[in-house]
Amino acid sequence: MKLAQLAHLARAELVGSGEVEISAITDLARAHAGALVMVSDHQDLAAAEASPAAALLVAGAAAPTTKPFLRSENLRAAFARVLSAFAPVGRGPGEIHSTAVIAPDAGIGRDVLLGPFVVVGEGAAIGARTTVHAGTTIGPRVQIGADCLLYPHVTIYADCVLGDRVTIHSGTVIGSDGFGYAMEDGVHLKIPHIGRVVIEDDVEIGANAAVDRATLGETHIGRGTKIDNLVQVAHNVVIGEGTLVVSQVGISGSVTIGDGVVLAGQAGVVDHKRIGAGARVLARAGVTKDVPDGATVSGFPARDHREEVRAMASVRRLPDLAERVAAIEAKLAGRSRRQGARKRRG
Amino acid sequence: MKLAQLAHLARAELVGSGEVEISAITDLARAHAGALVMVSDHQDLAAAEASPAAALLVAGAAAPTTKPFLRSENLRAAFARVLSAFAPVGRGPGEIHSTAVIAPDAGIGRDVLLGPFVVVGEGAAIGARTTVHAGTTIGPRVQIGADCLLYPHVTIYADCVLGDRVTIHSGTVIGSDGFGYAMEDGVHLKIPHIGRVVIEDDVEIGANAAVDRATLGETHIGRGTKIDNLVQVAHNVVIGEGTLVVSQVGISGSVTIGDGVVLAGQAGVVDHKRIGAGARVLARAGVTKDVPDGATVSGFPARDHREEVRAMASVRRLPDLAERVAAIEAKLAGRSRRQGARKRRG
Amino acid sequence: MKLAQLAHLARAELVGSGEVEISAITDLARAHAGALVMVSDHQDLAAAEASPAAALLVAGAAAPTTKPFLRSENLRAAFARVLSAFAPVGRGPGEIHSTAVIAPDAGIGRDVLLGPFVVVGEGAAIGARTTVHAGTTIGPRVQIGADCLLYPHVTIYADCVLGDRVTIHSGTVIGSDGFGYAMEDGVHLKIPHIGRVVIEDDVEIGANAAVDRATLGETHIGRGTKIDNLVQVAHNVVIGEGTLVVSQVGISGSVTIGDGVVLAGQAGVVDHKRIGAGARVLARAGVTKDVPDGATVSGFPARDHREEVRAMASVRRLPDLAERVAAIEAKLAGRSRRQGARKRRG
Repeated sequence: MKLAQLAHLARAELVGSGEVEISAITDLARAHAGALVMVSDHQDLAAAEASPAAALLVAGAAAPTTKPFLRSENLRAAFARVLSAFAPVGRGPGEIHSTAVIAPDAGIGRDVLLGPFVVVGEGAAIGARTTVHAGTTIGPRVQIGADCLLYPHVTIYADCVLGDRVTIHSGTVIGSDGFGYAMEDGVHLKIPHIGRVVIEDDVEIGANAAVDRATLGETHIGRGTKIDNLVQVAHNVVIGEGTLVVSQVGISGSVTIGDGVVLAGQAGVVDHKRIGAGARVLARAGVTKDVPDGATVSGFPARDHREEVRAMASVRRLPDLAERVAAIEAKLAGRSRRQGARKRRG
Repeated sequence: MKLAQLAHLARAELVGSGEVEISAITDLARAHAGALVMVSDHQDLAAAEASPAAALLVAGAAAPTTKPFLRSENLRAAFARVLSAFAPVGRGPGEIHSTAVIAPDAGIGRDVLLGPFVVVGEGAAIGARTTVHAGTTIGPRVQIGADCLLYPHVTIYADCVLGDRVTIHSGTVIGSDGFGYAMEDGVHLKIPHIGRVVIEDDVEIGANAAVDRATLGETHIGRGTKIDNLVQVAHNVVIGEGTLVVSQVGISGSVTIGDGVVLAGQAGVVDHKRIGAGARVLARAGVTKDVPDGATVSGFPARDHREEVRAMASVRRLPDLAERVAAIEAKLAGRSRRQGARKRRG
Repeated sequence: MKLAQLAHLARAELVGSGEVEISAITDLARAHAGALVMVSDHQDLAAAEASPAAALLVAGAAAPTTKPFLRSENLRAAFARVLSAFAPVGRGPGEIHSTAVIAPDAGIGRDVLLGPFVVVGEGAAIGARTTVHAGTTIGPRVQIGADCLLYPHVTIYADCVLGDRVTIHSGTVIGSDGFGYAMEDGVHLKIPHIGRVVIEDDVEIGANAAVDRATLGETHIGRGTKIDNLVQVAHNVVIGEGTLVVSQVGISGSVTIGDGVVLAGQAGVVDHKRIGAGARVLARAGVTKDVPDGATVSGFPARDHREEVRAMASVRRLPDLAERVAAIEAKLAGRSRRQGARKRRG
C-alpha cells in the first residue's frame, strides 16, 4: 500500500513522498524496510529515524527529518485506522458450512457466514453479513443484527438480542441465569430468570466473559460499550453507552452504570449501586455506594481518589507515626518522673 | 393462568378474586394489564396500586386495597414459585440429535435429550430426563444423574460424577487438572491428577467457572450448593451443603468449606484453610487462616467483621490522628522552648 | 506394579521388599491394602504405619519401621513420578474422528489424534502425536508442535504458535484481540490486533484462561511456564521461562515478567510494568510499579513484603494508637488546666 493511501485512510497529514510502498506496520524493535512505525513516545524519535523503517507515524508536534511521515493530532486513532488496512480479513465470502445445524424457521440474512458446528435455534434471526465462527451456539428466538462477529465457542442463550456490529470473543456466555435463590426450609430455591440480555450496536465483549439474563425485563449493555475478558455482568445490570469495562471486573446484580464510565481492571461493584456518567473506577476499586457523575474513585470501600491517596499516604507513614507517639509518651513519662522527683525533693 | 392457580403454586394467601387472568410477571416499571407485580419494597406499594398491573404479590404485612393480591411470609420463595410458571421450558421431549457422538458402551437413560454436537465418552452414564445442550462434552466414565441440565459448551472431564438435578451453565469446566508441580532441577514437573470431581444433588454452577479434579481422591461439592459465574474451585477442595459461592471467588487447593456458608463476590481463600459451617465471608475478603463456624469475616487478611470495621474506621480517621499528633508535638516543643527560656532566664 | 519398579520410576531409594505389588496411590484417609501412601507431614508417619497401606513414600529424614518404603530428597518430584504411572492415559492411538473439519491444506503430523467436531483452519500445522480433544477450534495458519494436549473446547485464534509438549485445558482462549481502543469524536475506535501469541515448549495453561494476541509483534509465554485457571494475559505481555501464574491473576497490557517468577492467586499487574526474574508477587498483590529481580512483594499498591507486613501490623494496632493519642491529649489538657489553675492561683 502506498503511504499516500494510508494517509488518506488515517485522516493524517502526509509529509514527504506518498509513493513509498508500505508492506507492514511494526513496532520499533521489529522495524524493517517497508515498515511503517508509530512513534508514540517522543524519546523514540531518534531511534525510529535511525531504523530501517520506510516511514513513521507521529503525533502533532513531531517532525522527523529523514523519512516521510504521517502526522495526526489523534495518534491512536490514526494508528487504529492504518492497522485496519493490515488486519487479516476475519472472514471469507458468506457461506453456510454444511455441518451447521439451523432451525427451519430461523431467519438468516444475506451473506451471513456460519462456520462448522454452529447451532442456530428455533425462531432465531441473524442479520446480513454477520459472521458466526465454529461451534458457536445461538439459542431459540435470539435476534442478532447485521455485520456482527461472533468468534468460536460463544454461547447466546434463548431470547437475547444483539444489535448491529457487535463483536463477541470466544468462550463468552450471554444470557445465563442470574445468581438468585430464595431460602425456604433451609434450601436455596431457584428464582427462575425469565428476562433476557439486550446488547446494543457497536458493543465488543472479550473472551470468557459472562453476562447474565435479567430476572424480569433485561440486562442491558449500551451502544459502543466495550467489555474485556473474564468480566462478570450480573442479572439486571444496566450499562450505558461508550463505557469501558476492563478485564476481571465484577458487576453485581441490578447495578446501573452511566455513559462514558471506565471500570479499570479487577474492580468490583456491590449490587444495586449506581455509577454516574463519566465516572472512573480505578483498578481494583470496590464500589459499595453510589458514585456521582464524573467522580474518580479508588480503594475498598471505594471513595474519592484524592482522599484515598491521602489516606494511603497516612498508612504508609503509620509506623513512623507510631514511633512519634511512643517518643511523646517517653518524654511525658520522663517529665512526670522529673516532676515527681522535684516534688519529692521539693 | 388464573391468580388462584398461582396462589396455590406460590403457597401464598389469596386476597380478592382468584379468577383474574395473569399473563406475565413483570417489574413495576413494565407493569401492564394482565401482569402480576411483586412489591418487595413497601414504599413501592402506592405506585404498584396505581399501575395497570392486574394483581400484586406482597409480603406478610402489606395489604393492597385496590387490586387482588397474593401474600406470603416468604416473599422471595413465593416469587420464585410463580416465576417457574412463566419460565420458558428449557427443553422439548427427549431426543438424541443425529449429530451427537455417543460411545457405544455409554448408558443413556430414558427421555434424555442430547443436543447437536454433544459428545459422550466411553463408559459414561447419563440418568433419565437429563438435558445436555449443544456442544457439551462428557468425558469417559463420567456419571451424570437424573434430571440434570447442562447448557451448551460445558466440559466434564473423565471420571467425574454429578448427582441428580444438577445444573451447569455454559463454558464451565469440571475436572481439569489441579495446579500442582514439583520443582526438580529448575523445572516444574507436573503432578498428575488422578482424582476426580464429585458434585452432589441439586447443585447449580454458573457460566465459565472451573472446578479442578483432586490429585488423589476427590474434589467435592455438597448437596444444594450454588456456585456463580467465573468461580475457581481448586483441587481437593471440599464444599459442604447449601453453601453459596458468589461470582469470581477463588478457592485454593485443599480448602474445606462447611454447610450453609456464604462466600461473597471476589473473595479468596488461601490453600488448606477451613471455613466453618454457617460462616459468612464478605465481598472481596481474603481468608488466610481458618474461619470458625458462624463467624462473619471481611478484609484482607480476613478477620472478624466488627474488628475490621473498627480498624477501617481508624484508618479513615488517620489523617486526622496524624494532625493531632503533630499538634501535640508542637505544643510540647513550645513548652520545652518556654521551659528552656525560663531556665535560661532563671 | 511392583514397588521396585516405582522406586526406579521415582528415582527414589527403596527400603524393604521391592516385590510388593502396588495397585493404587492414595492419600492416608483412603489407604487400603495395595496402596502406596505419600507421607508429606512427618506427624502423619505413625498413622501411615498403622494404616493398611502396602508401602509408603517418605522424605529424606523419615524411616518407617513396619512397611517397605521409598525415600526421596525431593518428595514432591518422586510423588509426581509415581503418580504418572497411575494416571489414566489421556488418549488412544492416533485417530482422526470422522466429524473433524480439516482444511485441505492443513498439515497433520504422524499419529495425531483429532476428536469429534475439531476444526483445523487453512494453512494450520499440527505436530506429531499431538492430541486435540472434542470441539477444539484451531484457527487459520496456527502452528502447533509435537506431543501437545488440547482438551475440549479450546480456541486458538489465527496465526498463533504453540511449541512442543504444550497442554491447554478446556475453555481457554488463545489469541483473542487485546482491549485497545482510540477515542475519536466520543467513540471508542477499535485498534485492530494484527500480532499473535507465541507459546513455547512445555507450557501448561489451565481452564477458562484468556491470552490476548499482540497489537503488533507477539504476546509471548516462555518455556516451561505454567498458568492456572481463569488467568488474564493481556496483549503484548511477555512472560519468561519457568514462571508460575496462579488462578485469577490479571496481567495488563505490555507487562514484562522474568524467568522463575511466581504470581500468586488473584494478583494483578498494571500495564507496562516489569517484574524481575525470581520475583514473588504474593496473593492478591496489586503491582503498580516495577518489581526488582528476586523481590517479594505484597499489598496494593504492592511493595516489599516485609514493609507491607510491618505496615499491616501498624494498622492492626491503630485503634490502640488512637487511644494512646487521646490519653496524651487528656493528660496534656489536664496539665494545662492545672498549670492554668496554678497561674490563676499564682
